[in-house]
Amino acid sequence: MTIKETEQQFKELLKEQKAYEESLYLMMWDLRTKAPRKGMELRSEVIGFLSQKIHVLSTSDQMKQFIDALKGKTNDPVLAKSVEECEKEYNRNKKIPEQEYKEYVTLQSRAESVWTEAREKGDFSLLQPYLEKLVDFKRKFAEYWGYEKHIYDALLDMYEPGVTTETLDQVFSALRIELTALVEKVNQSSHKPNPELLQHHFPKEKQEGFSLEILKRMGFDFEAGRLDETVHPFAIGINPKDVRVTTRYDEEDFRMAVFGTIHEGGHALYEQNIDPSLYQTPLAGGTSMGIHESQSLFWENFVARDEGFWENHFDVFKSFAPKEFQDLSFDDFYRAINEVKPSFIRIEADEMTYALHIMIRYELEKALIGGEIEVKDLPRLWNDKMEDYLGIRPESDRDGVLQDIHWSGGDFGYFPSYALGYMYAAQIHHAMKKELDVESFIRNGQFLKIKEWLGNKVHRYGKMKQPLEILKDVTGEGLNPSYLVDYLTEKYTKIYKL
Amino acid sequence: MTIKETEQQFKELLKEQKAYEESLYLMMWDLRTKAPRKGMELRSEVIGFLSQKIHVLSTSDQMKQFIDALKGKTNDPVLAKSVEECEKEYNRNKKIPEQEYKEYVTLQSRAESVWTEAREKGDFSLLQPYLEKLVDFKRKFAEYWGYEKHIYDALLDMYEPGVTTETLDQVFSALRIELTALVEKVNQSSHKPNPELLQHHFPKEKQEGFSLEILKRMGFDFEAGRLDETVHPFAIGINPKDVRVTTRYDEEDFRMAVFGTIHEGGHALYEQNIDPSLYQTPLAGGTSMGIHESQSLFWENFVARDEGFWENHFDVFKSFAPKEFQDLSFDDFYRAINEVKPSFIRIEADEMTYALHIMIRYELEKALIGGEIEVKDLPRLWNDKMEDYLGIRPESDRDGVLQDIHWSGGDFGYFPSYALGYMYAAQIHHAMKKELDVESFIRNGQFLKIKEWLGNKVHRYGKMKQPLEILKDVTGEGLNPSYLVDYLTEKYTKIYKL
Repeated sequence: MTIKETEQQFKELLKEQKAYEESLYLMMWDLRTKAPRKGMELRSEVIGFLSQKIHVLSTSDQMKQFIDALKGKTNDPVLAKSVEECEKEYNRNKKIPEQEYKEYVTLQSRAESVWTEAREKGDFSLLQPYLEKLVDFKRKFAEYWGYEKHIYDALLDMYEPGVTTETLDQVFSALRIELTALVEKVNQSSHKPNPELLQHHFPKEKQEGFSLEILKRMGFDFEAGRLDETVHPFAIGINPKDVRVTTRYDEEDFRMAVFGTIHEGGHALYEQNIDPSLYQTPLAGGTSMGIHESQSLFWENFVARDEGFWENHFDVFKSFAPKEFQDLSFDDFYRAINEVKPSFIRIEADEMTYALHIMIRYELEKALIGGEIEVKDLPRLWNDKMEDYLGIRPESDRDGVLQDIHWSGGDFGYFPSYALGYMYAAQIHHAMKKELDVESFIRNGQFLKIKEWLGNKVHRYGKMKQPLEILKDVTGEGLNPSYLVDYLTEKYTKIYKL
Repeated sequence: MTIKETEQQFKELLKEQKAYEESLYLMMWDLRTKAPRKGMELRSEVIGFLSQKIHVLSTSDQMKQFIDALKGKTNDPVLAKSVEECEKEYNRNKKIPEQEYKEYVTLQSRAESVWTEAREKGDFSLLQPYLEKLVDFKRKFAEYWGYEKHIYDALLDMYEPGVTTETLDQVFSALRIELTALVEKVNQSSHKPNPELLQHHFPKEKQEGFSLEILKRMGFDFEAGRLDETVHPFAIGINPKDVRVTTRYDEEDFRMAVFGTIHEGGHALYEQNIDPSLYQTPLAGGTSMGIHESQSLFWENFVARDEGFWENHFDVFKSFAPKEFQDLSFDDFYRAINEVKPSFIRIEADEMTYALHIMIRYELEKALIGGEIEVKDLPRLWNDKMEDYLGIRPESDRDGVLQDIHWSGGDFGYFPSYALGYMYAAQIHHAMKKELDVESFIRNGQFLKIKEWLGNKVHRYGKMKQPLEILKDVTGEGLNPSYLVDYLTEKYTKIYKL
């Protein structure tokens, strides 16, 4: 077979994989938004079947043959990078013995449902045995996959390829010192915002109207996506021209839906603007969890919590908002949406304390995987760190170690991406300011300029570039937490008169 | 391999087929309700891929081996019937040479888009060459498939297995005589209803509210289905516990949505109440187009256009309806929703003239496939028959031969099912009355009694019984058009004082 023919056949295989994925993603969207309850049982069999198909394809002999035939031989850069991705996936999946993988998948889904119960009851002991087994599995897997310095690197690589435990230790320790000091200052400030000013009944339809308006202004393409309602908001690229976001409406607190929609909208812009040359390859998606999160956080925080943004949009907001908001002063409003306050629950945390929540998780999971601590000690260690970093101590594990589903799903190594997203976003924001008059674009609602810049620098590449490659190309340097610190310091010094 | 093992493996194959089908059906629902426009291009590739997978499975050597190994050998009645269905499908698909099938599929999809243009322009000549080729293909296919008496039987069998041209000729000619005479009488009646009384603005949300209320009362299980909005209403069983109906809201004419929803709801009850022992087999669906239509028409006409139904529901209706409806008398309302009037468009036809529309199509397509007439003569022949049966002649082919998409999609043999549905429904209604006090159940809104009866007699069997088997078991006799004639005569004699 000529190289051209092999390339053609390999492309067909990639298309096949994408066809299963698209079916699966549509089902996931459907399950979380529209699907009737009783259809779930049969539906999960279909989901299992399709997932299995993808797994089998990715580890097939055919796949191995294509990798061997094309690696270092194809001149097509998209195919070359696709081969690289497929090889990574092939190795990752092949290295785990079939039987162990099956046991792990079963354990994972049981642990997730036990977690629901444990969290409801605030009883960590229910989850403990499952978590112990999951940690054991993940330690074994990490050994199969291999690593250079720290065993945790093997897991981290799944979510943030190229980022290491060594790097994280450095940036997180620098960041922690700065953040805890800042939070301390904020706590002591006597010039506090009043978030109660925001808590008025705000009808769902009106919140939806405002959310749609902002999405439109951001350049979200409604002919290539939609907005729906759900319990847990998410964004999903069913294909690059069918990217759906969901949001949740709390009629007593509009912040949930408005900032949530903008956040998911940031994810969606990434998926919608991937270069068409990458369609139907494994490269047609965000390059890492962290870079993805940098895009959502960019829009949520650097745009939609910015003072200039509200100078332009406060009137629009008021045109959707009920009468209680009409006399609210701009200053009170702006400061209230930027309240900083140590709290127990990560997903409710503000932009200053958020990274501290992540560090607690990172340090604990790294030590778990490294074999330095035991699962049974997690609740106590968690609470100690909360007290240490945030100055508060959960009374129930429900507000502590049991709050996130990630570990019960076997997702160790995932959490750092959230904090990386903040740092990437701040660093990208800083780089953007050197090239664009970002402040004025935000102030004047010229979001398309920002969207285009991000599209050119980040979105279009999909997985063609690794996360740190993107960061280097966009900002001219490696990961540097000082941009986040500078941004927070400047912003909150003003808000809290520090 | 033991027979048990073969059975087990065959079941796995059936499940696999169902998994592809479920993915495909969800995509179809999504495309017609929610999917963003620009995602269609990539989506259609996925749809093509999944359809191809199903086609390949159904004609695979593996399938053939299972059929040979299990036919007449398995003791499991569900598997035995499944083997029968699979064999039918295998033979049907295998008999057409691969190359011809591909050409046909391409032609079909091109013809459908040409049809859209031809209809818009009212220009039959655009479609004619495509239709000629499609007829040629279908004649060839019919020869491959084989038939006993009339070539058209081979096509009819796809939609209404067991029903023959001979039967249709008999029942349709009997029915035509009665219906044309009845329509003639109605035309001459001076006691005509006034449908203008119904044409007031009726907000979409209110129509939706009433439609949902009726669906609920019919016993539609909202935990196993949903109602959405669409351009062309339909019902689809994604799986038997995920059956979705759609409707269209015309704010100037509530009849579209209300009767449309009830019609699709009737289809949905069939799919929702198939016996669980048939799940994940090819038997988990309606047994034929005609029996399916009998279920939708039963609810639409025999229930929701019944006088007793409105005696109970007119107040409910008014509670959703705008003020213009509040002073409408029950009698004016009931007669208006049952107006009979010869009209050009099949899908807008009333229950008395509908079957005449079908007969025109049946006679023409039978003659086309039989080689007795030519495609180029269709417009003239169509108009002649319209004048003959309904006393009106279309001025444009848009209101004549170009109105339906079926022929452009290669669907010859499909139309009779619609008329069969009416006859089946009337015959089932008559049989039901012998066992149940239907009139009183409808009058008192005890629809669940009716739903249960249909569930027991029709729904649960899925494809375990052929259409005429169902009819015989339920009514004790073969197809008999006199029940439809009696029903229409009695009802409209009263409404029109004939």
